[in-house]
Amino acid sequence: MSQNETPLNRVQNSFARQGLMQHLGARLARVEPGLCAVLLPYSDKVTQQQAGFHGGAIGAIADIAGGYAGLTLAPQGMEVTSVEYKINFLAAFQDGELRATGHVVRAGRRLIVTTADVIHVDANGKESACAVMQQTLMVVPKTY
Amino acid sequence: MSQNETPLNRVQNSFARQGLMQHLGARLARVEPGLCAVLLPYSDKVTQQQAGFHGGAIGAIADIAGGYAGLTLAPQGMEVTSVEYKINFLAAFQDGELRATGHVVRAGRRLIVTTADVIHVDANGKESACAVMQQTLMVVPKTY
Amino acid sequence: MSQNETPLNRVQNSFARQGLMQHLGARLARVEPGLCAVLLPYSDKVTQQQAGFHGGAIGAIADIAGGYAGLTLAPQGMEVTSVEYKINFLAAFQDGELRATGHVVRAGRRLIVTTADVIHVDANGKESACAVMQQTLMVVPKTY
Amino acid sequence: MSQNETPLNRVQNSFARQGLMQHLGARLARVEPGLCAVLLPYSDKVTQQQAGFHGGAIGAIADIAGGYAGLTLAPQGMEVTSVEYKINFLAAFQDGELRATGHVVRAGRRLIVTTADVIHVDANGKESACAVMQQTLMVVPKTY
Repeated sequence: MSQNETPLNRVQNSFARQGLMQHLGARLARVEPGLCAVLLPYSDKVTQQQAGFHGGAIGAIADIAGGYAGLTLAPQGMEVTSVEYKINFLAAFQDGELRATGHVVRAGRRLIVTTADVIHVDANGKESACAVMQQTLMVVPKTY
Repeated sequence: MSQNETPLNRVQNSFARQGLMQHLGARLARVEPGLCAVLLPYSDKVTQQQAGFHGGAIGAIADIAGGYAGLTLAPQGMEVTSVEYKINFLAAFQDGELRATGHVVRAGRRLIVTTADVIHVDANGKESACAVMQQTLMVVPKTY
Repeated sequence: MSQNETPLNRVQNSFARQGLMQHLGARLARVEPGLCAVLLPYSDKVTQQQAGFHGGAIGAIADIAGGYAGLTLAPQGMEVTSVEYKINFLAAFQDGELRATGHVVRAGRRLIVTTADVIHVDANGKESACAVMQQTLMVVPKTY
Repeated sequence: MSQNETPLNRVQNSFARQGLMQHLGARLARVEPGLCAVLLPYSDKVTQQQAGFHGGAIGAIADIAGGYAGLTLAPQGMEVTSVEYKINFLAAFQDGELRATGHVVRAGRRLIVTTADVIHVDANGKESACAVMQQTLMVVPKTY
């Protein structure tokens, strides 16, 4: 990261490099110190057997929202990698889009703990809880 | 499920309906009572910012391998849905393919507990541990 | 539960029956619909090898705080049992007391999802984050 | 740890310092490189509201079994601390004793990942699955 990089630039640059997020059609919605929100619109690329959003896709954007919330607080020259995460699915949804918002709970020198909530937003803007996640990140040197 | 459906047919029919798995290029490798293995070849659809397999893709195939291991033991007319899972990432990998193998730890009437391990297999067939997962499934009526 | 039982009575009656909580010296601090707080004072019954609060004791009161938050919302004649929980430890503490507060995230007919945070309170009343937990409960008939 | 300490001595010395384990009546059953088993006999110190083993006590010995499995592989002068764990409860048990066995899945330089299974053993020696756990440990300097 150059000295002029903002948290937003930093996350945008990393996000743009993620083939999975690009292919699924996810996009960044909001980046602030200690917070990141990611949107995933419904499409046939993200479905399970009943045509709802796939748990794997929900887990992926929750993981990313938590990870990038952590990245905003990592020291210069460092990035973060997921050590582990745990996700609970609250309800199934179809159509509309998902919004995963990650928050840093504690940023240590070596480890960062985050939580994320995933909300479904339907065509009328109605919001419903979809999933909650808890995650551990490790701070590692940036190698690219 | 018709009375003639084998565990393999049952899992294949559900798997074929999953847009996410089809889109990422995953395929079933092995289905037995209480066990399911899923393969995910490397491609630019499954990468993170350093060009390794994305944690979200690893989580997705682990979730699926555990879920289908559980489905093989669910009563007729029922299917399973993920209540939650927790995954630890052990190492990062590029190229080759991932093999997630789910095992049923305990199959109750209402809930099923599984574990899955994800192994990386390189072009020479060398295997390395990539991730381990622990998961809770709920048994629900099949609605399609 | 009799028809006159309040959420507070209901939780108090169950809590008083828990040998582990009585033995460790834990007590209920607050019970409201969807919320429960438990206090655990420091003593040599709850320590690990460095004389800090033991992770097992922290996990036990987080599990209980989440579980009783869920019990306040369970139908009459039912109680809850822990399906699983996941806890992250944020920092180690000695002396003073811990306060675990559980919150219901979603109360379904069969499953309830909760989170809990554990705070350390020192002799001067200073509060510091100690742990965060995410939990799944199952609603089951009360058998005693 | 002195240069002559074996994995067994090392774990025994730490275990003897844990007030919680001493008070609950737990004892070490087996220590080998990458493995540790802990026994917890039934008593009124470890019960929940239905007189079964308390989830908090089950979690505590699983955490300890995994942690000491990790300690056997930590470098000299270092010890381990629990970053997080996730436990699934499979069935409730009364009387007899519990045996938690931790295994190292991967020992890295900074982090160690373990799993543990908890088995109930009744008065006749019959064994039944009680819980499974997955855990992350951090390697830290020993300070006592």
